[in-house]
Amino acid sequence: MLGNTFGRIFRITTCGESYGGGLAVIVDGVPAGMELTNAMIQEELDKRKPGQSELDSPRKETDIAEIFAGRGQEGLTTGAPVGIMVRNVDMQPIHVEQYRKVKHLFRPGHAEYTFFVKYGEYYDWCGAGRASGRETVGRVAGGAVAKQILLREKIEVIAYVKESCGISARDMSFEEIKKNYRANPLNCPDGEAAEKMIAKILEIKNAGDTCGGVVEIIARGVPAGLGEPVFDKLSAMIAHGLMSIGAVKGVEIGAGFAAARMRGSECNDPPYIEKGRVRFRTNNAGGFMGGITNGEDLIIRMAVKPTPTVSLEQDSIDKRVMKPARLAAITRRDATICPRIYPVAEAMVRTAILDALYLWRAWQGVQNAVVRSEMGDG
Amino acid sequence: MLGNTFGRIFRITTCGESYGGGLAVIVDGVPAGMELTNAMIQEELDKRKPGQSELDSPRKETDIAEIFAGRGQEGLTTGAPVGIMVRNVDMQPIHVEQYRKVKHLFRPGHAEYTFFVKYGEYYDWCGAGRASGRETVGRVAGGAVAKQILLREKIEVIAYVKESCGISARDMSFEEIKKNYRANPLNCPDGEAAEKMIAKILEIKNAGDTCGGVVEIIARGVPAGLGEPVFDKLSAMIAHGLMSIGAVKGVEIGAGFAAARMRGSECNDPPYIEKGRVRFRTNNAGGFMGGITNGEDLIIRMAVKPTPTVSLEQDSIDKRVMKPARLAAITRRDATICPRIYPVAEAMVRTAILDALYLWRAWQGVQNAVVRSEMGDG
Amino acid sequence: MLGNTFGRIFRITTCGESYGGGLAVIVDGVPAGMELTNAMIQEELDKRKPGQSELDSPRKETDIAEIFAGRGQEGLTTGAPVGIMVRNVDMQPIHVEQYRKVKHLFRPGHAEYTFFVKYGEYYDWCGAGRASGRETVGRVAGGAVAKQILLREKIEVIAYVKESCGISARDMSFEEIKKNYRANPLNCPDGEAAEKMIAKILEIKNAGDTCGGVVEIIARGVPAGLGEPVFDKLSAMIAHGLMSIGAVKGVEIGAGFAAARMRGSECNDPPYIEKGRVRFRTNNAGGFMGGITNGEDLIIRMAVKPTPTVSLEQDSIDKRVMKPARLAAITRRDATICPRIYPVAEAMVRTAILDALYLWRAWQGVQNAVVRSEMGDG
Amino acid sequence: MLGNTFGRIFRITTCGESYGGGLAVIVDGVPAGMELTNAMIQEELDKRKPGQSELDSPRKETDIAEIFAGRGQEGLTTGAPVGIMVRNVDMQPIHVEQYRKVKHLFRPGHAEYTFFVKYGEYYDWCGAGRASGRETVGRVAGGAVAKQILLREKIEVIAYVKESCGISARDMSFEEIKKNYRANPLNCPDGEAAEKMIAKILEIKNAGDTCGGVVEIIARGVPAGLGEPVFDKLSAMIAHGLMSIGAVKGVEIGAGFAAARMRGSECNDPPYIEKGRVRFRTNNAGGFMGGITNGEDLIIRMAVKPTPTVSLEQDSIDKRVMKPARLAAITRRDATICPRIYPVAEAMVRTAILDALYLWRAWQGVQNAVVRSEMGDG
Repeated sequence: MLGNTFGRIFRITTCGESYGGGLAVIVDGVPAGMELTNAMIQEELDKRKPGQSELDSPRKETDIAEIFAGRGQEGLTTGAPVGIMVRNVDMQPIHVEQYRKVKHLFRPGHAEYTFFVKYGEYYDWCGAGRASGRETVGRVAGGAVAKQILLREKIEVIAYVKESCGISARDMSFEEIKKNYRANPLNCPDGEAAEKMIAKILEIKNAGDTCGGVVEIIARGVPAGLGEPVFDKLSAMIAHGLMSIGAVKGVEIGAGFAAARMRGSECNDPPYIEKGRVRFRTNNAGGFMGGITNGEDLIIRMAVKPTPTVSLEQDSIDKRVMKPARLAAITRRDATICPRIYPVAEAMVRTAILDALYLWRAWQGVQNAVVRSEMGDG
Repeated sequence: MLGNTFGRIFRITTCGESYGGGLAVIVDGVPAGMELTNAMIQEELDKRKPGQSELDSPRKETDIAEIFAGRGQEGLTTGAPVGIMVRNVDMQPIHVEQYRKVKHLFRPGHAEYTFFVKYGEYYDWCGAGRASGRETVGRVAGGAVAKQILLREKIEVIAYVKESCGISARDMSFEEIKKNYRANPLNCPDGEAAEKMIAKILEIKNAGDTCGGVVEIIARGVPAGLGEPVFDKLSAMIAHGLMSIGAVKGVEIGAGFAAARMRGSECNDPPYIEKGRVRFRTNNAGGFMGGITNGEDLIIRMAVKPTPTVSLEQDSIDKRVMKPARLAAITRRDATICPRIYPVAEAMVRTAILDALYLWRAWQGVQNAVVRSEMGDG
Repeated sequence: MLGNTFGRIFRITTCGESYGGGLAVIVDGVPAGMELTNAMIQEELDKRKPGQSELDSPRKETDIAEIFAGRGQEGLTTGAPVGIMVRNVDMQPIHVEQYRKVKHLFRPGHAEYTFFVKYGEYYDWCGAGRASGRETVGRVAGGAVAKQILLREKIEVIAYVKESCGISARDMSFEEIKKNYRANPLNCPDGEAAEKMIAKILEIKNAGDTCGGVVEIIARGVPAGLGEPVFDKLSAMIAHGLMSIGAVKGVEIGAGFAAARMRGSECNDPPYIEKGRVRFRTNNAGGFMGGITNGEDLIIRMAVKPTPTVSLEQDSIDKRVMKPARLAAITRRDATICPRIYPVAEAMVRTAILDALYLWRAWQGVQNAVVRSEMGDG
Repeated sequence: MLGNTFGRIFRITTCGESYGGGLAVIVDGVPAGMELTNAMIQEELDKRKPGQSELDSPRKETDIAEIFAGRGQEGLTTGAPVGIMVRNVDMQPIHVEQYRKVKHLFRPGHAEYTFFVKYGEYYDWCGAGRASGRETVGRVAGGAVAKQILLREKIEVIAYVKESCGISARDMSFEEIKKNYRANPLNCPDGEAAEKMIAKILEIKNAGDTCGGVVEIIARGVPAGLGEPVFDKLSAMIAHGLMSIGAVKGVEIGAGFAAARMRGSECNDPPYIEKGRVRFRTNNAGGFMGGITNGEDLIIRMAVKPTPTVSLEQDSIDKRVMKPARLAAITRRDATICPRIYPVAEAMVRTAILDALYLWRAWQGVQNAVVRSEMGDG
């Protein structure tokens, strides 16, 4: 309840902070009989690792995933909850001391002030504690489990950088995106745009500043029918999940905010029949009607704010005396977290889709018995 | 679980559809000893009533709220859940027959197709059933209860039309907005802009089409500390609530999508001290840091798509034969639902804030005992 | 969260008190396409009606159930939540005044003291408010919906009086119980024992006192596999549901407390094969192994305390002055609530079973896709 | 949802099985600023360790608790979720092979059959997997955290063996129980009765059999007001928690099943005033009125069935061919789990009480603002 669990049937519960002993996730709702290896988790964790290019923080995070629960003697899942542990390894005393030196200052754009209000003097001042981006290790590890289950359902989710520094990637097909989105350090599938974005990001970085961007998430193969009417629309669950990622300031689906400027006749996606199945000529709805999936690709975008840690001196508050103070420039930082946040978006969307799928199957199972019974076959 | 409850401690559970016997809401988490009258609920319901101007559907909905549970003999709340009933009254057989005539067609932009996938032949084809905007009666009635409780906490929430047809209201102070936002049928506080928007909307309406817009919600007086880290950030709960409203395609907080184009040094809100309290010079964060409120106004916007019902013929599918068909122009409709959706946004944000407030108080209560104990006063 | 919802996927949310406008239940998780009539709800409500014999309170409760939401124009369910309203009708001013006269006294065995602690002066003093047995109207109405769904699954649940005043019904077959349990006002299927119990109850009643008993619940046709390991065992969910009924002081399954006196070799139910299916020669387990159903009848018993309202003067407290006081004998009362509590037990067990069934179907759906995929058919 | 979380605000989520890499618990709802050491967790874990006397299985479980998340650099809690890991160490290949040899047989009284139904061939056959008593390591570790928080609230919970082999401990005061209950290997505070019980248990053990008993739990210092009316009565939450422990077949509060044989005038606990506070002369209610605590000790008992593993040959089923088979006598086993299950009962009751306390504080916080406002102080 106090915020460390996401999902209703398929659910991930996480713990851990940036300078503690480790980060763990307990994944409930893993079917039995499934191959699930440390390497499958590692593959996703590696996507969010810093230090992969000059866009990222030079911090070394050699995260090693260990599945310690939920598998039987043959190595397959058993239906028991899966437990995954990732130890924190890069925690040198020198870094702790660096944080200790500025722990009396609220860093602009960070959550220290609100954590201080909430937890008093006892909040974790070291490396942003639970408010650190390291918290997402648990999300990504849990999402990696969801990914394996969704693969059996032929559901694919990919996220990539759509826009940065005001430069947008051109519209591309799913296949093209999938093929190219990890070809450059920014994870933007449009190589030409990516080059421009990277140049601009480095320019900003050299000026001591940071930038953000827009990440688009596409889910392909999602069957029609997922999501519950009214409060638990799948679109709403996904918005919840994505908005819960630190640095995300907006979420939109399909045409999103542009829909607010369209006319009805233009925004409505015209249906047609293709091979006996209902399809839609456009996808302004982003794959959702009434919050329930319609069988088209899910299209979701999220706005990522610029990294708050900058190499420029900033106004701050000294909380010991509640007086103005200055925070010195900080050098170790991500120029933008866009290239590292996309696997987190994938994890949240996968978790939400799988959770909705469970509810859909629950419903179908009971519904089918009713229908059979009405037809006299019961 | 199947989607008809919102909130964790303060929670609203709704039922009812557009052509059933009535719409009800059960509100759990209402403190005892509070005056709560039918008129208080009615005031909010009246805001979402159609037929208030030529912008709305001419449908008459004389919704009358009746509190039937949760109050004692003296008329005050008792701590028991509050039950509110609103009977459906404008359900003439002629309208049912109009819906029956087109029930084999999927209306573009509506949820019929996905409801059909989910519930089969048994989905409610009359007036959009549970997917109708009438479902929001329960939300607004529940939110009216939250409003009364929040008043005791000096928390105010207002929503208004910020943009329509590409025309934006100018930036205004909270007081100015509050004073003027209900002065015109569009509920846009900038009278000059409202005039232009209304002219444009009527032009679109006369062309048989519809439009959407952007609704901004401001919450004032929210104490710092609300919201739980990681998955249950208050910003995420609000995004969930707003995205669950039919027709909403995007949600953003503070600078929102514009933050994706800012630099870090520009996006960070500089803190300062005012009368011993931490304040922020700008509010790009929209009142949230790490998803927890920082004491500044909460600023949230949602994108509302144009009403899907248009007076133009459209492509459709005849579900009896799964073949293309044409849907004739429909005359009874809202030119835009912006002026009627804002009380729903208020209701959802109030519900989310009050729910977070309960958790905050839960936390404080237990935390304080620990702190006292550590200080040797336990 | 504050206690008015039961169930996870199939869930009932209730409101209403003994002297308010009405009692309602919102039932989430009702499949589409099912016939559901007011008469089906009424049949169950009638079971808990008082005044059916000299064992009950003479209070007249002509509860009339109205389904006001969740059905389409053809009268079938649509998949939307079902709303049911029961108006309070027997609320004469004279009764309100009777309660008002003693509202300063805590009635022994009733919940007034704890409600006073919790809600202060504002607790509902009239007819026990939300702590009244009338609260169970919502449970029974919700359980009546579950009953109809379970019928499609060929699951039957019956509850009956197994023991009262120290007299026990003999062991009988399910068929015999089903045939006879409603043949007498006590709802005890053993006619001979029932006669003795009734004589004893009337004797106690004439002495101004009251008594309790043991109600046994049997569920037949429950498929093996329901219930989730660890915390959400179906046996635990049922214990939760039954212990939440006012007046229930104990719950046991299968051999129950007697198991504490057995030896392992005696308590273990020996398995055997019958028509290719695993069966058990005894049912000390009560149909649960590891909290998951094993295909045998579920056997559950609950202890019902004697009605606290007695026709004898009792010690009390005057809360206005927090001083001892005497509570006069009360004449209008149930000699025992055993004959009226059994439909509530049925409702709770049905709700819990159906809820577990939904989760089971959710699991199977996802699990099957994994298994098919492992077998190369995916 | 699939059963690995207990609690609503204060909640424990566990994973791990008897022959996996380890058992972990994530504890959400831990206040900030609290000392929490590995030794505090260890103390509770040591209570459930086997091999402490000839009553237990000789299995060695040198469980070492490691708190790996939720504490800051000073070692105090930070408000972040606490993560605790206990590695499985006594897993010799020879034991795995012993289980493998009989994995085709359903062991009577164990959960293999239902796990097979639920998870198919993929269920964990080694050491009972997630259905093993080892699962309770996570509960006890989580409960140890609750214990530390409850200490600040001056709430104490103790559980002890009240009855075994038909022999009961005499009634004793809380102080006497607390002083003596861990003085013998059975954890029965009545030394004389304990001696008799132990003699009887060893006799049964020598005959190759096992036995159960009754464990009583007393909670002292619980303030009046905990628990929510209707479905979430604290008594119901506790029944849920205790019935979820493997081997528990019944739960009763206060007079429990004996109340079913009492008269109303005898069962009602007469209230009186002591030092200005409402007290009760008897405690047949077990500290609950309307499911809400009344300030008296909470008295709860649970029935523990005999250990199903016996040193006698038993009927079984060979699941490979679905034919009858015989299961040979098993030598390594607990004669009774009563002396090892009591810390699990303590953990569940502590978790449930703390969770209810959070909700109570949430309620009080919001309620107080309303009351102040009504009084014109708002």
